[in-house]
Amino acid sequence: MAKYTLLKQEGTARRGQFETVHGTIQTPAFMNVGTAAAIKGGVSSYDLVDLKCQVELCNTYHLHLRPGDDLIHELGGLYKFMGWRGPILTDSGGFQVFSLAQLRTIKEEGVTFNSHIDGKRIFMGPEQSMQIQSHLASTIAMAFDECIENPATREYTRQSIDRTTRWLVRCQKEMNRLNSLESTINRDQLLFGINQGSTFHDLRIEHMKQIADLGLDGYAIGGLAVGDTAEEMYGVIEAIEPHMPADKIRYLMGVGTPVNIIEAVYRGVDLFDCVMPSRNARHGHLFTWSGIRNILNEKYARDDAPLDDQCGCPCCQRHSRAYLRHLFKAGEILGMRLAVQHNLYFYNTLMEKIREALDAGRFEQFRAQMLPILGRRV
Amino acid sequence: MAKYTLLKQEGTARRGQFETVHGTIQTPAFMNVGTAAAIKGGVSSYDLVDLKCQVELCNTYHLHLRPGDDLIHELGGLYKFMGWRGPILTDSGGFQVFSLAQLRTIKEEGVTFNSHIDGKRIFMGPEQSMQIQSHLASTIAMAFDECIENPATREYTRQSIDRTTRWLVRCQKEMNRLNSLESTINRDQLLFGINQGSTFHDLRIEHMKQIADLGLDGYAIGGLAVGDTAEEMYGVIEAIEPHMPADKIRYLMGVGTPVNIIEAVYRGVDLFDCVMPSRNARHGHLFTWSGIRNILNEKYARDDAPLDDQCGCPCCQRHSRAYLRHLFKAGEILGMRLAVQHNLYFYNTLMEKIREALDAGRFEQFRAQMLPILGRRV
Ligand SMILES: [Zn+2]
Ligand SMILES: [Zn+2]
Repeated sequence: MAKYTLLKQEGTARRGQFETVHGTIQTPAFMNVGTAAAIKGGVSSYDLVDLKCQVELCNTYHLHLRPGDDLIHELGGLYKFMGWRGPILTDSGGFQVFSLAQLRTIKEEGVTFNSHIDGKRIFMGPEQSMQIQSHLASTIAMAFDECIENPATREYTRQSIDRTTRWLVRCQKEMNRLNSLESTINRDQLLFGINQGSTFHDLRIEHMKQIADLGLDGYAIGGLAVGDTAEEMYGVIEAIEPHMPADKIRYLMGVGTPVNIIEAVYRGVDLFDCVMPSRNARHGHLFTWSGIRNILNEKYARDDAPLDDQCGCPCCQRHSRAYLRHLFKAGEILGMRLAVQHNLYFYNTLMEKIREALDAGRFEQFRAQMLPILGRRV
Repeated sequence: MAKYTLLKQEGTARRGQFETVHGTIQTPAFMNVGTAAAIKGGVSSYDLVDLKCQVELCNTYHLHLRPGDDLIHELGGLYKFMGWRGPILTDSGGFQVFSLAQLRTIKEEGVTFNSHIDGKRIFMGPEQSMQIQSHLASTIAMAFDECIENPATREYTRQSIDRTTRWLVRCQKEMNRLNSLESTINRDQLLFGINQGSTFHDLRIEHMKQIADLGLDGYAIGGLAVGDTAEEMYGVIEAIEPHMPADKIRYLMGVGTPVNIIEAVYRGVDLFDCVMPSRNARHGHLFTWSGIRNILNEKYARDDAPLDDQCGCPCCQRHSRAYLRHLFKAGEILGMRLAVQHNLYFYNTLMEKIREALDAGRFEQFRAQMLPILGRRV
């Protein structure tokens, strides 16, 4: 089951590949978020191919509520349903249960909550999360965990990570059972465990050691970028990295800015996801190779240049800043679509450049060159 | 200047072509409406190529207010601005001045009104409309007319059409002047006159004769589908058709359903535009070769078939009814985009089928076969 291959290392930064039944992922990689089986902003799975996307991520909580994972299972799984041909990762639903759902009660069995759509009372525990993700038939399923908000007390965190480990064991058992069933669409579904422990380094390490022993297909770092600072996040990664299995893929959940990603790759992370590129795009905030641009700015009104002349995306190849700005000002949805295409292309290209730098043994140089540029507003 | 060629006739129905500096339009044709230099629903000018679109239509009133026709002129005209490579028709602004703008006062010189966006006081007469359209650099400019709402009194209509004729003479003079200027982007801009006269056949005919004498590049029938019935509309077309120059292209403005279009082609019309396919699509109302479907209907929830198995559009080639319905229910913009792509493809294909039927001398048969199907709800 060793599907991750470490191809090259520069310091702690890793260049690798991860083989799945739905294709091989070149890492470091950024997963493009299609929450409800579609990229927000009018971008389809077919469009993602032109945006250099390698992996699409979908949200278990959202799909369970609407249209229902039983419906997606009946229609052949997420691949067939949304038409994406590469690997898909589904989250466990846990993060949304803890951030979106209402009237939540946590017990050892799992979590009972009210749907944010219609208030319907729903129970989700490790087994239910695995069953839903098996229905969705994603390539990679995520373990059901409690995502603790930062700051958290040491005592609460201690109890929570112990329960998350017990939940992980149940996830693994249930996934094994599901993968053995004839009716399961993807019987090669992979399971990633999630490290928790808030910002307590010793608890993070202890938990990492516990879950490393379970021999999972990959390991995620959860519970970061939820109230903590970037420095705290880098600190946590540095603390646990030596305890993460070197022969397994490593995924930093929900992160982040281009700068965050470069810094996390530098500290040994392989896989990322974040709603930032698509969400920011929908508000006209665009990442470019010169820095961050707000296309609504008056100075672009008569600017005939492409948004980013170094970018090969469908927006930059065809349209001007003036046109893009006009679309936003006129409330035309096309503006959002073009902006989302650009930002996703930018993120996927950033990962490509990171891989190329690692391949060439000049990642350290790339990092030094890019950090001051990518974070600035122009 | 005789750019229209009548290729074949079946009864009153005409198969022709219309040559312009931006390409030849095969007629009958349907123009796809990109109001503010973009198709509503996240569809770009580049997407239109795959939807068999021949002509894109943009709205002078909207573009004059935002981003401003001077800006578009500075950036090289609508072609360059929105990236469409075929012919473009701009309306005169008149229709929006009479339907959207507030505190309107009509005088012989033109109309003063308040912008519906910011309330700004604006004056638009025949000369201003021509200047704006010359700035936009469309292939075809429409004359500035008064669009009378139906029902209207005979006395009001009589005065209005006389003024519309006087305005048309001023439009023609101003366009000749603009086309002679070095600074004009499209110095081959064409001018279509618009027939008015409400539902009074004698006034319609009288006005048609007046404007036919001016030797314009094409003739439009305006002021229909604004409060009148389909039967009244067909009646008006039948009344004026014998008085429309046979060697000029004929455009029925703002019409209509697939049935309306077939009936109008049957009565001698060559060119159409309507917001219906894109507007209905955004509400999940989809035209198919079996009839009209509402994709929000519960019966499509688990329907794995394409929306229309006879359709070659990007939506039907790739996605299921169940997926499209899910996107609408989940509020995903992608649903609108796919639906708009489908409906525009349907309309453009309808026109293609009409042309093929005319080419083969079986339009009468096509009409008899299609009318009962295309209007029904399934
Ligand atoms: Zn771009
Ligand atoms: Zn279709």
